[in-house]
Amino acid sequence: MAERIRLEKTIVSENDRLAAVLAARFDEAGLLAVNLMSSPGAGKTSLLEATARHLSADLRLAAVDGDLATDRDAQRIQRAGMPCRQINTGGGCHLNGKQVAEAVKAFDLARLDILFIENVGNLVCPASFDLGEHRRIVVSSTPEGDDKPVKYPVAFRSADAVVLNKIDLIPVTDFSLDAYREFVRDVVKPGVPLLELSCKTGEGLDAWFDWLRAQRAAVAAEVAGRRE
Amino acid sequence: MAERIRLEKTIVSENDRLAAVLAARFDEAGLLAVNLMSSPGAGKTSLLEATARHLSADLRLAAVDGDLATDRDAQRIQRAGMPCRQINTGGGCHLNGKQVAEAVKAFDLARLDILFIENVGNLVCPASFDLGEHRRIVVSSTPEGDDKPVKYPVAFRSADAVVLNKIDLIPVTDFSLDAYREFVRDVVKPGVPLLELSCKTGEGLDAWFDWLRAQRAAVAAEVAGRRE
Repeated sequence: MAERIRLEKTIVSENDRLAAVLAARFDEAGLLAVNLMSSPGAGKTSLLEATARHLSADLRLAAVDGDLATDRDAQRIQRAGMPCRQINTGGGCHLNGKQVAEAVKAFDLARLDILFIENVGNLVCPASFDLGEHRRIVVSSTPEGDDKPVKYPVAFRSADAVVLNKIDLIPVTDFSLDAYREFVRDVVKPGVPLLELSCKTGEGLDAWFDWLRAQRAAVAAEVAGRRE
Repeated sequence: MAERIRLEKTIVSENDRLAAVLAARFDEAGLLAVNLMSSPGAGKTSLLEATARHLSADLRLAAVDGDLATDRDAQRIQRAGMPCRQINTGGGCHLNGKQVAEAVKAFDLARLDILFIENVGNLVCPASFDLGEHRRIVVSSTPEGDDKPVKYPVAFRSADAVVLNKIDLIPVTDFSLDAYREFVRDVVKPGVPLLELSCKTGEGLDAWFDWLRAQRAAVAAEVAGRRE
């Protein structure tokens, strides 16, 4: 087991090196990079579709999208109006820095305002791999149950915002919103916002768009501050 | 990358050795061992609760349950009447043979008819780790969307049966049952059954119980056949 832990650390630190290069490129380009993590089917792609429809008129958006197989998600995001490059990982359980560096060659980063990195649907492994992003989001959804924050604490603890999707399904599931809010508070860093929304009905999406705009401004200030 | 693949192969083959020992113990005990894999929140625990309530009178059941953290699932399964031992993996994204061998020490295997191994909620990594089971199940659920079989083909291809849970939610989601059935057919091994059910309403559960009973008989015959 000690041997295995050492090997995993080697893999992660090689990834960290690549992630630092990506982070510098994202800063240099002046964009906001957002890494989205979730269980399969929680609604990362639906959130990006809604974002494309609502923000494309004001902001220059693009995405890279990780899946074991198929380009279904990239097709959906592109149909909604956001340029998207699919990454197929084969059996890989998370995106890594090398894959993202390769995929973003499709874009002129200096001409983007926000780059979304939709990770492989997996609430465990992606949390251990930095992709150079400025902000990290966990998307969860009501049919998964209200206890996911305490059962998958590593991902939730690494998040800068938690999105709870599919709130329209609360009346037809056993999901307790009070319990979920308490579990989130138990696990996340202090001050991390919880954005409750439904990509299907549109309820709550404005708070997500406002959060994105605020992060863009905050990251621009952080980058300028580091240059002084 | 070549280095990484070699390391992963080393880890998997050490696991395979432990899995072979477990498989021999399960055969010797005369039980049926079933490994359940799914996304977080698809309903593995709910399926085991329903199974406990319906089959405990006829069959001697037990379970081991993998989660990153908490013993919530083991508590639920035990309350439903099935002895269950929780395994906490910390950050680990799947159960391995060593963890299962340790956990099953809690049971007298020779006195069990069926042992369930509920894997960590993750539709990627558990597919690569044999736990000595006779049968492997993928549980998916309608709110995750109908395209999961083609987006997570490795897990679905390794399954001996596919369970589709939460069919009661089809009317309130965009899930297409026709599309899902076609995607399953495209991916799974020939002859693998698809069991459509709802742990909430009970619809379709009888087919799951019948499938378990049939596998018990089939595995007993296979084990006897290998001894001749």
